[in-house]
Amino acid sequence: MAIKFEVTKECKKTKARLGKLFTPHGTIETPVFMPVGTQATVKAMSPQELEKAGIKIILSNSYHLYLRPGHNLIAQAGGLHKFMGWGGALLTDSGGFQVFSLGKLNKVNDEGVFFNSHLDGSKHFISPEKAMEIQIALGSDIAMAFDECIPYPSGRYQAEVAAWRTVRWAKRCQEAHPDDGGQSLFGIVQGGVFRDLRIESARKLVEMDFLGYGIGGLSVGEPKSLMYEVLDYTVPCLPADKPRYLMGVGAPQSILEGVVRGVDMFDCVLPTRNGRNGSLFTSSGKLTITNAKFKDDFTPLDQHCQCYTCQKFTRAYLHHLYRAKEMLGPILGTIHNLYFMSNLMEGIKLALRKDRLLEFKEEFLANFQS
Amino acid sequence: MAIKFEVTKECKKTKARLGKLFTPHGTIETPVFMPVGTQATVKAMSPQELEKAGIKIILSNSYHLYLRPGHNLIAQAGGLHKFMGWGGALLTDSGGFQVFSLGKLNKVNDEGVFFNSHLDGSKHFISPEKAMEIQIALGSDIAMAFDECIPYPSGRYQAEVAAWRTVRWAKRCQEAHPDDGGQSLFGIVQGGVFRDLRIESARKLVEMDFLGYGIGGLSVGEPKSLMYEVLDYTVPCLPADKPRYLMGVGAPQSILEGVVRGVDMFDCVLPTRNGRNGSLFTSSGKLTITNAKFKDDFTPLDQHCQCYTCQKFTRAYLHHLYRAKEMLGPILGTIHNLYFMSNLMEGIKLALRKDRLLEFKEEFLANFQS
Repeated sequence: MAIKFEVTKECKKTKARLGKLFTPHGTIETPVFMPVGTQATVKAMSPQELEKAGIKIILSNSYHLYLRPGHNLIAQAGGLHKFMGWGGALLTDSGGFQVFSLGKLNKVNDEGVFFNSHLDGSKHFISPEKAMEIQIALGSDIAMAFDECIPYPSGRYQAEVAAWRTVRWAKRCQEAHPDDGGQSLFGIVQGGVFRDLRIESARKLVEMDFLGYGIGGLSVGEPKSLMYEVLDYTVPCLPADKPRYLMGVGAPQSILEGVVRGVDMFDCVLPTRNGRNGSLFTSSGKLTITNAKFKDDFTPLDQHCQCYTCQKFTRAYLHHLYRAKEMLGPILGTIHNLYFMSNLMEGIKLALRKDRLLEFKEEFLANFQS
Repeated sequence: MAIKFEVTKECKKTKARLGKLFTPHGTIETPVFMPVGTQATVKAMSPQELEKAGIKIILSNSYHLYLRPGHNLIAQAGGLHKFMGWGGALLTDSGGFQVFSLGKLNKVNDEGVFFNSHLDGSKHFISPEKAMEIQIALGSDIAMAFDECIPYPSGRYQAEVAAWRTVRWAKRCQEAHPDDGGQSLFGIVQGGVFRDLRIESARKLVEMDFLGYGIGGLSVGEPKSLMYEVLDYTVPCLPADKPRYLMGVGAPQSILEGVVRGVDMFDCVLPTRNGRNGSLFTSSGKLTITNAKFKDDFTPLDQHCQCYTCQKFTRAYLHHLYRAKEMLGPILGTIHNLYFMSNLMEGIKLALRKDRLLEFKEEFLANFQS
């Protein structure tokens, strides 16, 4: 079956909404944060740990899986869910972002992108059709159209070329995608920070009638205020009955700002990367656990948190693990940061239910120092 | 309470025995394999994963904890069990082996060992009294006497000096150890590969009446047959009603050979280190999961194994994780290897109960290619 999306409640004071995303691998309440499992694993986490952290959907990267172990191998394994032992829902990106940020670009034209692998320098070509072939092989629940991602800052001309190319590619993705019900395809709105490009890009994609819409090309270096501004005028161009996904955004503050602007889905490597680096989220903000002051701090990481890390260990022990470069540090840090994100999303949903989202946002941001 | 040890069954055809080791942190059936948690963590494993792998006792290293985070900090935390969130039993080594193998030695005399830290080159001195102070601070269930470890090969003179020094140090450890019931002290037999030294060393230590006896200085480069020979004449010198601990030995074959020679306890970094490196134990032997032939092997690592890794994932996925240098590889590999070791020990105990230890050993070794 294709995904279905249902808005279950709309916020009266903001554009935020509660929703349900029905996928072949479970129903997900939105707004939702999706951890990133770049190479068919959310770093440091087993599937059972993800479940314990309340995670119901993760993102995986087509670019990485195409290069290693190869999408055909994963198809042979019975698809990505089976390959990585993940029973929840999966969204795959198209590879667009990674091709532009990690690969060594050789040529980009309307045909597609010629690039060298960041692993071994080998030559590759990804077109919209190839991006569909890869994601179909992976068998994710949600596939993303292939898009051209531009850096920030980019001039208007570059943004315009990329936006219209992304629209043309979206059409080709749609044509190459069987839409046989097992996997649902989302379009991606580009257009940089140019209001008219974003609006026109959204309009053209909406005409194609995708099952959901990604907002791409944000959180690529622009000031946060500018990102929020883009959301202010882009989100209203997207249909109310389809999920809206702000790609690559996952800082707690940005999630709250996205939610009040009507975004339903988020993904980011930040909570897991931070977890590995010892930058840990607490109700009073981010904390660098390797700081000397935590050496003999025998209190829990976050006394309000119910995760395994906070229930069983102290800051002093975590400090020791990270200082001694023990794997258990990143493991416990990731468990905690993901639990924190799930908990944040639960808080947002509860506040939406109780018609106090803005109050929740204000309280959260007053305490959370990043 | 001090530990208590009870031999519950003796093998009729070998010197092997079944036993129960009662500790302040649980009762352990012997023969037992103890994984090594060098820096207050068994690498890649959380305490809950250790429990799931059937682990009831682990070893931790005084030398490492003395240097980082410091034994006094761990005492402040309420002891090592509490610091690392481990509810099972703990044995600490004395630091002797590590001082000689990792530290940069400056001077060894009867007083103790002057050395430089392998971490930062800082100068340190560990005496038998200091080794007791450290282990008392750590609060392990079983502490080991401070011993002088010699490499293989060593001449008779060197072995003799070290053996008698270790005996004198054992006496000083006993005097420095409060023996107040919370922690039990084991002596360590040294003597290299010299029969008379081993026997005389054992005799002198037994006179001191320790609660258990380590056999040290083996598995340091000598041929396996020589190690078994040393066990053949050393173990009979140790009292039947006290636990016998073969230090630093943990290869499946060596455990079986140790068990039939009357050893009750084993420890080794091998299963965990191998797990991290992708050298994984199966019922048919060790397997190097990074080998190309496993790239598209969609069978479980070991079809007879009930561990999480074997129940949920394929060799192809594990191959991918190790190749992509994903932390989940070492995590799943360690989970499996420790489960394998627990399973081996269960097999040994069951065979002992059923009076078929030698048959079990023969069957196991016929299948297990290392």
